[in-house]
Amino acid sequence: MENEAFVYESWQARVVFGPGRVDSVGDETALLGAKRIFLIADRNAPGAETARRSLGTRLVGRWDEIAQHVPVELAERAGKAVESAAADCVVCLGGGSATGLGKAVVRKRPVPLVAVPTTYAGSEMTTVYGLTDGDRKVTGRDPNVRPKVVVYDPELTTGLPLAVTGPSAFNSLAHCVAALTAPDADPVTSALALEAVRHIHAGLPLVMAHPSDVEGRGRLQFGAFLAGTALAGTGTGLNHRICHVLGGLLGLPHADTHSVVLPHVVALNATALPRETARLAEALGAPGGDPAALLWDLADRNGIATDLASLGVRPEHLPVVAGRVEPRPNPRPVTADDIERLLEHALAGRRPDTA
Amino acid sequence: MENEAFVYESWQARVVFGPGRVDSVGDETALLGAKRIFLIADRNAPGAETARRSLGTRLVGRWDEIAQHVPVELAERAGKAVESAAADCVVCLGGGSATGLGKAVVRKRPVPLVAVPTTYAGSEMTTVYGLTDGDRKVTGRDPNVRPKVVVYDPELTTGLPLAVTGPSAFNSLAHCVAALTAPDADPVTSALALEAVRHIHAGLPLVMAHPSDVEGRGRLQFGAFLAGTALAGTGTGLNHRICHVLGGLLGLPHADTHSVVLPHVVALNATALPRETARLAEALGAPGGDPAALLWDLADRNGIATDLASLGVRPEHLPVVAGRVEPRPNPRPVTADDIERLLEHALAGRRPDTA
Repeated sequence: MENEAFVYESWQARVVFGPGRVDSVGDETALLGAKRIFLIADRNAPGAETARRSLGTRLVGRWDEIAQHVPVELAERAGKAVESAAADCVVCLGGGSATGLGKAVVRKRPVPLVAVPTTYAGSEMTTVYGLTDGDRKVTGRDPNVRPKVVVYDPELTTGLPLAVTGPSAFNSLAHCVAALTAPDADPVTSALALEAVRHIHAGLPLVMAHPSDVEGRGRLQFGAFLAGTALAGTGTGLNHRICHVLGGLLGLPHADTHSVVLPHVVALNATALPRETARLAEALGAPGGDPAALLWDLADRNGIATDLASLGVRPEHLPVVAGRVEPRPNPRPVTADDIERLLEHALAGRRPDTA
Repeated sequence: MENEAFVYESWQARVVFGPGRVDSVGDETALLGAKRIFLIADRNAPGAETARRSLGTRLVGRWDEIAQHVPVELAERAGKAVESAAADCVVCLGGGSATGLGKAVVRKRPVPLVAVPTTYAGSEMTTVYGLTDGDRKVTGRDPNVRPKVVVYDPELTTGLPLAVTGPSAFNSLAHCVAALTAPDADPVTSALALEAVRHIHAGLPLVMAHPSDVEGRGRLQFGAFLAGTALAGTGTGLNHRICHVLGGLLGLPHADTHSVVLPHVVALNATALPRETARLAEALGAPGGDPAALLWDLADRNGIATDLASLGVRPEHLPVVAGRVEPRPNPRPVTADDIERLLEHALAGRRPDTA
């Protein structure tokens, strides 16, 4: 047994998955008993018009101003619009920023959230919310922000640019690794995380070769859903903490940093987590292999960033970033020096070699 | 993708798992805010005394009369005792019959149920309840009967006789097959069901060789938990319908019939479900193998029944049983004649051969 003792918690969730299913937003909000629905979505977001039509006359308000990292003042303005419209349900459609805004809006308001994600962020399955005030990003957990229903429509993702697709898929892989290696990992979330890795690993090359392939898109989105579900049962880890500091301090987009940092975090912890490392290699299609190198190769082969330099990070940034990353918890003890060395490898885009 | 479109629902659940964890019944009921707790458990049930002690002075009543298939009048008497004690929480500790009585008692009463299962029945994870009135067994679903907390303590199962262990493990395998092949199967429940099969398949020989092996017992119980969780997301299938008729009509214990009937149901549906059949073989440790024969061999090798004759079924029973089994839904259309032929194979204990 991977864990001979554990505590596992699950919660009420409803997930509707399938090509074309964005048209079920109307039915799903009706099942919730909603009569006055507020839609948060970029006007150009794929599926926004179909969602709007399916709501019919129950649509009482719309919001199309979305921003990365959810600025506090944006969340306040959007929240007031929801109140003015006397909405009894909020639908958010879009990437992680739209979901994040939806979560921020319902956090202090007793209305259910329905999420229609169009990337692989996975945040729609968790209680985690984030708000940015100036250059300070605050994240927290609140059961109120978890969407009551999530509608996944792979067709909405066929147009997602490859430059977003790859990093977003790696964000999702990072969720899997975090769930698998968390101190409170349990065998159920681990099984979901590994299943997610299998689907993302299989779907990513399909999509990079044929961006509009619905089957490949479906596998990526299904993987993202499982990864988010797994992550919701545990905390994030060192990889996310490094990426959050890179994002907050240097303004790098959240998803872009994962493909670079993740392989090095996996390498750092490989000896401390032999069993998880072996299972990860197996899920990446290479039993007995080195998952750090496998992840690096997966990024490299699919044209996804493997070095921080190409994202604009410079050597002089590294000590500052390393000093700001909280080193705990982590499967093995690490110091700011360890993190700086890891960042040096990541800056140069070195292929990890744990052999 | 195994299912390109699906609806998945989960619900609030808390599972505490680990050797010795029966002592957490006190803490878990306290977390629920319970002040007056009623304990349903056979006096000789392993762990009953530890559970009782952990409840301290909050224990306000006990019930130790348990019967297979939960007779209606027993449920009524136990329910009245819970009311007389003004209990605000019911703890049920024992096999499927104790869990079943706990469910029947809380169904019409607004008190939470905490279950401590000591076999591999899996019913503690579902909304399914069953009641017997004379020779008529009624089953239904009700969200109220699902336990709020489940405590699994593998040490409570180390003394479970092998004659109960084997059939109970096969009951659990039958839940996996049902979840995997149900018309409303989704890829999440399928992943859980296959993970459960892997654990039960690995744990069963360990336990049959060393009945008190806590690791093997843990794997069986973890498998039973996942199997119950998977089954809760779907319905049961032909195998359970056949076993329920055998149980109701001929008085056979529910669990004993599964090891005999399940391989033949898997054989019957193999050609209609090629993908699920292949995944089942893989989870049973033999990619490309025939899961019907693998299940039959698993029973045979471990001294678990493979024929109905040894359970007391006679040839003249078969047409009556076949006529009472509802043939739908099933992955391929079946007639009463098909079911009778299946029962003939099961009666004789023939090894299925789908080649």
